[in-house]
Amino acid sequence: MSTNILRTADGWWVVRGDRAVPVGTKAGTTAELVADRALVREAAASGEPGTPVADLVALSPVTTPCRVVAQMVNYRSHARDSGFTGDIPPAFFRKASGSVSGPGDTVIRPPHVKFLDYEIELGLVMGAPLPVGTRVEERELPSYVAGLVITNDISARDVQLTKTQFYESKSYPTFTPTGPYLTLLEPEDFAHLLGLRLKLSVNGELRQDRTLADMIVRPAQALTLLARFQTLDPGDLLLTGTPGGTALKAPPKPVEKIGALLPPAVKWKAFFKSQAKNPHYLKPGDVITATIATPDGRIDLGEQRTPVRDAK
Amino acid sequence: MSTNILRTADGWWVVRGDRAVPVGTKAGTTAELVADRALVREAAASGEPGTPVADLVALSPVTTPCRVVAQMVNYRSHARDSGFTGDIPPAFFRKASGSVSGPGDTVIRPPHVKFLDYEIELGLVMGAPLPVGTRVEERELPSYVAGLVITNDISARDVQLTKTQFYESKSYPTFTPTGPYLTLLEPEDFAHLLGLRLKLSVNGELRQDRTLADMIVRPAQALTLLARFQTLDPGDLLLTGTPGGTALKAPPKPVEKIGALLPPAVKWKAFFKSQAKNPHYLKPGDVITATIATPDGRIDLGEQRTPVRDAK
Repeated sequence: MSTNILRTADGWWVVRGDRAVPVGTKAGTTAELVADRALVREAAASGEPGTPVADLVALSPVTTPCRVVAQMVNYRSHARDSGFTGDIPPAFFRKASGSVSGPGDTVIRPPHVKFLDYEIELGLVMGAPLPVGTRVEERELPSYVAGLVITNDISARDVQLTKTQFYESKSYPTFTPTGPYLTLLEPEDFAHLLGLRLKLSVNGELRQDRTLADMIVRPAQALTLLARFQTLDPGDLLLTGTPGGTALKAPPKPVEKIGALLPPAVKWKAFFKSQAKNPHYLKPGDVITATIATPDGRIDLGEQRTPVRDAK
Repeated sequence: MSTNILRTADGWWVVRGDRAVPVGTKAGTTAELVADRALVREAAASGEPGTPVADLVALSPVTTPCRVVAQMVNYRSHARDSGFTGDIPPAFFRKASGSVSGPGDTVIRPPHVKFLDYEIELGLVMGAPLPVGTRVEERELPSYVAGLVITNDISARDVQLTKTQFYESKSYPTFTPTGPYLTLLEPEDFAHLLGLRLKLSVNGELRQDRTLADMIVRPAQALTLLARFQTLDPGDLLLTGTPGGTALKAPPKPVEKIGALLPPAVKWKAFFKSQAKNPHYLKPGDVITATIATPDGRIDLGEQRTPVRDAK
């Protein structure tokens, strides 16, 4: 049975229904919290009445600095949206952990960004070191992954596409809303991962809605591929890719092929001119809601609700 | 006048000619060492005879973990090699700091990598926090940058080009040889940066040889652009791009335009077939030497000498 953890300015809480019980831990970081599993169990089993969850202001349950690594194009539906055909080589990129914000914090659009997009992603929170060279078998996943979080991989598409490297476009402050819950898993919960359904709405309009069955490279294989070159430590965060439904859609193939013949500056100017008519990019005043859960509620990461505004 | 620092398993040393004097510091990390400037000055001014530098085994003077950020295509000569024409939008990417190795350590080619390349780069070592939103004027550079190091941004071209994101291809262990010296600068040294000449040879054959005058986005502007989204802290490392002369050369324009019309897998297969005849990629047994210095020796980052071998 999974356990939902909240973090507030006062510390860590175990969620039980609509109330939360404080965890008797001195943990400052997520790494320290996941090492304190016994105290989490104690709070979960205690007779304390607790505090209404509605009275608590949740912070990101992933503390920073930490490594934030993300998988590029990892759902078949998003690959189609992005114009990929044929084999997609699995690839990773980094996000600055300074981009991590709370599950109710406002997403701030920088002044130079016109095309701000959303990407709901399942976040894996590491519970053990992953040294370079590790091979993670499916059945070993519980030894490495402590829990799950909802993340939104907010992306400045005009920065991302013109610079080719994704790092800056996805690293501005508030570009990784995280939480509300860190959902700690028991080994038997891992068999239910593929049933997790990711849903993201903007102003109540459903934009993304897929289960993990649509995923291309699944968590155990993703960690194995990442460990070819990168160490992870407890508390580090792996974003596992987003399903279809983002505002960005690749141009039709013939247009793209012709675009490939143009100098990049000309190509992007034409592309973004066409995107200006796309109403799906995020605007000030929009509210994004995101949920990730199994249909039976066995694993339920809560609801993330983030408004959008322009930088002042 | 700049000061050259060496790090060994025993601690930190100030280099004076061909001898080195221990710095009386408890610093474990590069961040702690650059905060101990007074003790560095004391060692530099002491009457101690010191130890022959030739007897010391230098480690990377940049300790890890730290942030390693790199500038993409930042010399005009490398832009030409890489087939860029017109404006190049300044872009950054991350390298895993687990890739940092010592200035005499062997570069290890992973089993799946065929096209291993070198990229000499001037590394800036931060001396002060760079919060998001900072604008760094040319004259303020000494307030942020503590010193300089030679770095080699080793790149697995077959991984880099097929995955599009540079992160993995440049992050394998031993893919960032660093040092030998951390060259601490005085404010008046910064006026001499553009005179720095980067030279890299493979088996004694000169492959890269340019001064910073060929650089596109210079350090103060680079830090300003990076601070749009990323915080840096003391001891963090910014790689400022490589000049022309890498093994990789972009195919001629007409070939590239036709390649853009092919499915990616077909395009890369053809490209790497052509690259198999290119003798400049690194092979087991090669020895890379790299130096960065001003012509008058006022700033001299020493010589890096790294052999290459295959993973066992």
